[in-house]
Amino acid sequence: MQHIEINKILTSKPSTIEITVKGWVRSFRSNRFIALNDGSTIKNLQCVVDFENFDEKLLDKITVGAAIAVTGVLVESLGQGQDVEVQVEKIEILGEADPEEVKLTILSPKRHTLETLREQAHLRIRTNTFGAIMRVRSKLAFAVHEYFQKNNFHYFHSPIITGSDAEGAGEMFRVSVLDPKSPPLNESGEVDFKQDFFEKESNLTVSGQLEAETYAMGLGKVYTFGPTFRAENSNTSRHLAEFWMIEPEMAFFDLDANMDLAEDFIKYVVKFALDNCADDLEFLENRLLQEEKNKPQAERSEMTLRDKLNFIIENNFKRVTYTEAIDILKRSKPNQKKKFKFLIDEWGADLQSEHERFLVEKHFKCPVILFDYPAKIKAFYMRLNDDGKTVRAMDVLFPGIGEIVGGSQREERYDVLLEKMKAMDISAEELYWYLDLRKFGTCVHSGFGLGFERLVQFVTGMGNIRDVIPYPRTPGNAEF
Amino acid sequence: MQHIEINKILTSKPSTIEITVKGWVRSFRSNRFIALNDGSTIKNLQCVVDFENFDEKLLDKITVGAAIAVTGVLVESLGQGQDVEVQVEKIEILGEADPEEVKLTILSPKRHTLETLREQAHLRIRTNTFGAIMRVRSKLAFAVHEYFQKNNFHYFHSPIITGSDAEGAGEMFRVSVLDPKSPPLNESGEVDFKQDFFEKESNLTVSGQLEAETYAMGLGKVYTFGPTFRAENSNTSRHLAEFWMIEPEMAFFDLDANMDLAEDFIKYVVKFALDNCADDLEFLENRLLQEEKNKPQAERSEMTLRDKLNFIIENNFKRVTYTEAIDILKRSKPNQKKKFKFLIDEWGADLQSEHERFLVEKHFKCPVILFDYPAKIKAFYMRLNDDGKTVRAMDVLFPGIGEIVGGSQREERYDVLLEKMKAMDISAEELYWYLDLRKFGTCVHSGFGLGFERLVQFVTGMGNIRDVIPYPRTPGNAEF
Repeated sequence: MQHIEINKILTSKPSTIEITVKGWVRSFRSNRFIALNDGSTIKNLQCVVDFENFDEKLLDKITVGAAIAVTGVLVESLGQGQDVEVQVEKIEILGEADPEEVKLTILSPKRHTLETLREQAHLRIRTNTFGAIMRVRSKLAFAVHEYFQKNNFHYFHSPIITGSDAEGAGEMFRVSVLDPKSPPLNESGEVDFKQDFFEKESNLTVSGQLEAETYAMGLGKVYTFGPTFRAENSNTSRHLAEFWMIEPEMAFFDLDANMDLAEDFIKYVVKFALDNCADDLEFLENRLLQEEKNKPQAERSEMTLRDKLNFIIENNFKRVTYTEAIDILKRSKPNQKKKFKFLIDEWGADLQSEHERFLVEKHFKCPVILFDYPAKIKAFYMRLNDDGKTVRAMDVLFPGIGEIVGGSQREERYDVLLEKMKAMDISAEELYWYLDLRKFGTCVHSGFGLGFERLVQFVTGMGNIRDVIPYPRTPGNAEF
Repeated sequence: MQHIEINKILTSKPSTIEITVKGWVRSFRSNRFIALNDGSTIKNLQCVVDFENFDEKLLDKITVGAAIAVTGVLVESLGQGQDVEVQVEKIEILGEADPEEVKLTILSPKRHTLETLREQAHLRIRTNTFGAIMRVRSKLAFAVHEYFQKNNFHYFHSPIITGSDAEGAGEMFRVSVLDPKSPPLNESGEVDFKQDFFEKESNLTVSGQLEAETYAMGLGKVYTFGPTFRAENSNTSRHLAEFWMIEPEMAFFDLDANMDLAEDFIKYVVKFALDNCADDLEFLENRLLQEEKNKPQAERSEMTLRDKLNFIIENNFKRVTYTEAIDILKRSKPNQKKKFKFLIDEWGADLQSEHERFLVEKHFKCPVILFDYPAKIKAFYMRLNDDGKTVRAMDVLFPGIGEIVGGSQREERYDVLLEKMKAMDISAEELYWYLDLRKFGTCVHSGFGLGFERLVQFVTGMGNIRDVIPYPRTPGNAEF
């Protein structure tokens, strides 16, 4: 008999038709109530066993973590917490879980810290917390695709390995098949990458943007959604060496259209999660409340998780120029009272997380889009404004999390771009193909990047980025 | 004024409301008819210019490849090939394209070989052929997500960089930040990977399956869709060093359920393409017909591209055991007449592409699922049958393309798995986490892998895999 998934059973009406359910035992109370979970939902199915009808040896094997198949009929539940439950007629043990062995793992039914769970990342998906996070992650990923596809974007797979290292967005990982100990050397005594797989030095991509631009200039509107890499030695709760990035790129979009898109996109995916992950978000909201009870009052969130998500959907993002933001920050209390770690004293300073959070959480009390940044603190490909000193860059700042989106209108003028590349020591020869876009039918175009894990963190309320990706890669960690 | 995309305009009714369209000039006939394309569809919008109303200098700039904005009203078209056209009132040149420069590129309006297009991969997306392929690719990718999400699967991002090299599915790329010329050595004189970023030797993943299994044992049904890598020096039209793979993995699925899923899944995505890419598939079908005109009659397809896709949807995949297939092949004409390059003389032989294609194209004349392969030609994780010599493996074979899906029921028994790992020299210590799945609530489970580019090849009819991915990575090629 084919088994039925628990999320479907829990929304079914009682019936006299026999059903079979398969899943893992979460608990077995009083030799009578099995809480069964199959991953389809955070909710367990209550299976009621009349222990007198079953062999004791079989009942002994119904332990936490065991996989079982249960056959019975769905009846109305008199207990609290569920509408229906299964009256068990048959139990089959599919895979045991020795309680003595379970005791040594995070499967054991007691509180484990997130740190401990991280060490057993291959088992943590069986906990309520990680089941909820990863179901939400999956739904958010789908929402990303659905949004762009509905809006006439084409999904573009940017290359992961690249011989083009010109962007300089961050430290890169080298990809090679050369002998690691004794690589071949060329005549000048340097490593001869001509003998490597790709016949040149190759790295893992830090961004698919430049390649996405080439496709936007043919397909009009494209988006990437793929892994990107930074070999930065940052052991923080905000950084991963391997993370997933979403990068839309649109021909004929100026910065205003770019901001409109970013705001509309974020609202769509957050709403999608609220609409499609109600149970998981309820659980995560309560988890967060519990976690915050250990914090001093002042550090606790003013809003619950779902209130925060609804707040994003219901409010316009405030759009503010960098110059206006600097004025606000200069005059702000924490700046006057020297409470900022980095004091703002002049135009041109790069904003730190503390400043972004002040603007979002204290001053405007809503998501903020900062734009028109000083050219010298931004990348070479951003479009220069007529003032000659600012570029059409934008950052979307979120409460609690800081920058969630960074984007810009791209420099579409060949001469201006070439000039900037020279000034910033970026090889025009290497990037001939990027310059070609400005030679053949160039046009105003824009795009942005959103770190997917930051989004998942925001929606799930998880504080550490390592807890929103299945197998986090950080300095010293490439297990599994 | 906001511009409107051409795919929307082409399905609109004539109207007196002024609209603005932006795109790239595909042709400009008789100083009168501009064919404009913006990537939203393969179809061009005809824009009719009354040249007497425009400055000659402006008209001179309307050249192939230029980006322009056109304002006017949508009227009924009297010409062939379109229902509506734009009567142009205003033209703005957004980005010129110097005809002399264009002449040196694949943008020039003449026939270019696919090889030439590959060399200018940053521009080839502006051709009809690559626009069509990449729009179909995007739709297929979305169909993959939609299918799995509708069917209660969770999207799982398997890690790209991995310190686990135990599967042995293929040659791997090393990922490192160590000095490539003078890496640090340890006491035994070997490269000291402890000083590398991940503190151990790390590689790019060849498959996300083993990690996906860990998630299936918590979430029930998961799928991956991400890049995978093979450092094999195969300079063929069928191999890429970097390609995208789809790997569903399901708890409580046996091999039959796995086959059902693979068949249903493939039919869904192929139907999705037929339903959503009609214009592009029509174009690609004609392209293929043209291409085949240069081939001898015997090598031409019997069916058109869309007939072939419909054939897949409408027919059941024939399920045949490896043993039955060997019998058929042994008795087959090409084997008897020694026409096969590799003659089949005994049970246990690995099947070559020529055998797979004989079964599919000549013998059964439909997609075939071969299953229950000899254990010794398959991977360690496949479930051993009671005969002790075959495993619950399956391959889906397609006309023209051979293997498109490979999968299996996984060995769920701890002891059997451990035994096989020992026999095949796979480190149990390294894969402790994979063994743990068999220790804690193990269950029957299955999965398969589908190379996304093979699917795109099949649906678009493209013969070379380098033409169905934006920037192909092959030996010696990591440009862009």
